[in-house]
Amino acid sequence: MENTIKKIKNNLQEIMKYGSPVYLYDEDILIDRTKQMKQFKENIENELNGILVNIHYSPKANNNPKILKIVTEEGLYVDCMSPLELSINRKCGFKNEEILYVCNNIDKEEMKLIHDSNILICLDSISQVETWGKLYPNTDIMIRINPGTTGVGHDEKVITSGKETKFGVCEQNIPELLNTVKKYDLNLIGIHQHLGSLFLDDKIDEYMDGVKSGLRIVKKYFKNIKIIDLGGGFGVPYKESEKPLNLDLLASKLKVELKQFADEYLSIKEFKFEIGRFIPCEAGILMGNVNAIKCENDTYWIGTDIGMNELVRPSMYDSYHEITLLEPRNTQIIEANICGNICESGDIIGKNRTLNLPSVGDIILVHNAGAYGYSMASNYTGRPRPAEIMLYDNSTKLIRKRDTIESMEENIVW
Amino acid sequence: MENTIKKIKNNLQEIMKYGSPVYLYDEDILIDRTKQMKQFKENIENELNGILVNIHYSPKANNNPKILKIVTEEGLYVDCMSPLELSINRKCGFKNEEILYVCNNIDKEEMKLIHDSNILICLDSISQVETWGKLYPNTDIMIRINPGTTGVGHDEKVITSGKETKFGVCEQNIPELLNTVKKYDLNLIGIHQHLGSLFLDDKIDEYMDGVKSGLRIVKKYFKNIKIIDLGGGFGVPYKESEKPLNLDLLASKLKVELKQFADEYLSIKEFKFEIGRFIPCEAGILMGNVNAIKCENDTYWIGTDIGMNELVRPSMYDSYHEITLLEPRNTQIIEANICGNICESGDIIGKNRTLNLPSVGDIILVHNAGAYGYSMASNYTGRPRPAEIMLYDNSTKLIRKRDTIESMEENIVW
Repeated sequence: MENTIKKIKNNLQEIMKYGSPVYLYDEDILIDRTKQMKQFKENIENELNGILVNIHYSPKANNNPKILKIVTEEGLYVDCMSPLELSINRKCGFKNEEILYVCNNIDKEEMKLIHDSNILICLDSISQVETWGKLYPNTDIMIRINPGTTGVGHDEKVITSGKETKFGVCEQNIPELLNTVKKYDLNLIGIHQHLGSLFLDDKIDEYMDGVKSGLRIVKKYFKNIKIIDLGGGFGVPYKESEKPLNLDLLASKLKVELKQFADEYLSIKEFKFEIGRFIPCEAGILMGNVNAIKCENDTYWIGTDIGMNELVRPSMYDSYHEITLLEPRNTQIIEANICGNICESGDIIGKNRTLNLPSVGDIILVHNAGAYGYSMASNYTGRPRPAEIMLYDNSTKLIRKRDTIESMEENIVW
Repeated sequence: MENTIKKIKNNLQEIMKYGSPVYLYDEDILIDRTKQMKQFKENIENELNGILVNIHYSPKANNNPKILKIVTEEGLYVDCMSPLELSINRKCGFKNEEILYVCNNIDKEEMKLIHDSNILICLDSISQVETWGKLYPNTDIMIRINPGTTGVGHDEKVITSGKETKFGVCEQNIPELLNTVKKYDLNLIGIHQHLGSLFLDDKIDEYMDGVKSGLRIVKKYFKNIKIIDLGGGFGVPYKESEKPLNLDLLASKLKVELKQFADEYLSIKEFKFEIGRFIPCEAGILMGNVNAIKCENDTYWIGTDIGMNELVRPSMYDSYHEITLLEPRNTQIIEANICGNICESGDIIGKNRTLNLPSVGDIILVHNAGAYGYSMASNYTGRPRPAEIMLYDNSTKLIRKRDTIESMEENIVW
């Protein structure tokens, strides 16, 4: 983090030309996290006697092509959830076999695009298998199951496993699923499960319970499966008190289970993991300006230009992001709420934060903004989505332009 | 509502050309709600012996120019919260004196735009008054106060008054505010307050308490105020069991208070109200397709192409929207969750809804989608924002184009 701050300070004049707020990504961190994932992959793969381990980066966390190019250069693969993502993935150089289309509730037109593009599809329900099977019998598919464990997540909105989720086929419906697969002569080559989002070391055991549950279901119901996709959810520390996920520990536990599974289940050729947040999250900082400071009803409010349209996570999930001043100038320490410039009460980026009393014009940094930041941004109240900038030691590179009035008006039919 | 459904059925083939999902607006309802507001204005105005009542429509609810043109044609005014909104307002024909720039935590560049455009600004904090005053001494301003009452709202994220909100200057800081106004020779011509969002008849008394509180503060602290802006928050029924806001009842209560105030406070020339949701909300329907149906763990899930990127309110605020099938074909009644096509568990538009069992391919309608629908939409997971269509009896008109892959990639610097 200190290195990123140094890069921001080195390039400050240049960064400020891109308008405020602005998303900044530290390329070194992006490369480091990608390499960590590559090592995680190799670490497990080395134990598995020729069975492949592949990591698919999920662009829903951040689909900027510069990030995707780092991912592909390091030999990782990619997910795809929409025609736009497919277009970007291909332009970034991913080959068909490196792309997995993970979807739910899509229409026939989108299925045709996937089929005609020769991309492997992972379907999410018997209903979608039925639709696909009628159109494209005798093709390869993967299926998402719901392993029935409770799932792990930072908010109930992002827990993707268990009885309350919209995803996957639950155990009791697998016989019906298999009938549908057979009806259309589909080749069910892979099983997918995804347990949730944002787990750290304290949840590794729960994650492993989900993995075991999934493997048990595969053994019990499915024959000749070649691919098992164990999803993602690998967390990162958002708070200073949190520690990074211990990937070696996780790998060591996975190796035991996966090796044992592979020794018994001979058709298995590949394990997949889907990683979103882990790669870009910590590389990203959303930098903005302090435009107002007030104390009302004994509460300090720091008013910034970082609105919920640019970073919706705190408003939407009550997510915590560290917030710091680039150069604290005042020694007085205050407790304050930090908010944006949107006319909505929920437009708050941080509550009850302890920091140096800022001055109007100070630069403020919202940390861990690289994942689910730009990708969820909107033009609410007519505000532009920020530019995205890649940060190097002594230079920057614009990697996505800020919206302009003209671009925001472009779709309007007057 | 029946009339809107009839229009959808009459124009179905044409509507389907615009892609799915699609935002549909019934022009008759837009005109009706605008006329109701005009009548509300005239109703109060008639009691006030020459004091004006003006209604400012707030485009943050929906900034489509076709809606703004209806608003201006009926003689209502408009709010403005960003340079984009200013651009659209002007292109729709609003004159400078019909636009009120209501903002919080804006920067000097935006202040310059407002000043140079000759638009009246409503500032939100002493800090912002300080910034404005240094730049533009001896100009007209309005100030937003926090009347200190609890506020009314459908969710704590949208309550805009009371001790927990980021908005306005509270009573105890008014002496300091007045000093700052004096320091820069500013002409404080108006006071603004806003109590929250989405109140119906059962909250009219709370709303009136807020109004009284605001008027008391004006009388106690401010001299020669010409404009009092009482904000908005006028609700609409989202559930079948709710009744429309009784505007005559509200007007009758307001007339008593405002007349009494005007009799004592002689400089007052105008009362303003800010209406967002009230005009477009009920006119709008988000129409999509059922792409999958499943029953997992004894729960029915109806999978549609209406994702949280298109309508975020249910995911963000747990907001309730009525959801119906355009043409129920099956007589079996089920209880189901209705979800979208985004890979996120929170992507649910309605929980535990009772409806006829749909079939894949059925058309589904999300009601009351005209406000805070398109305006909060994003490209999350690479999904396009829908087209917006104006509905007439036997025709439709495209009023905003759907995003395309090309338009969504436009800002990328490869």
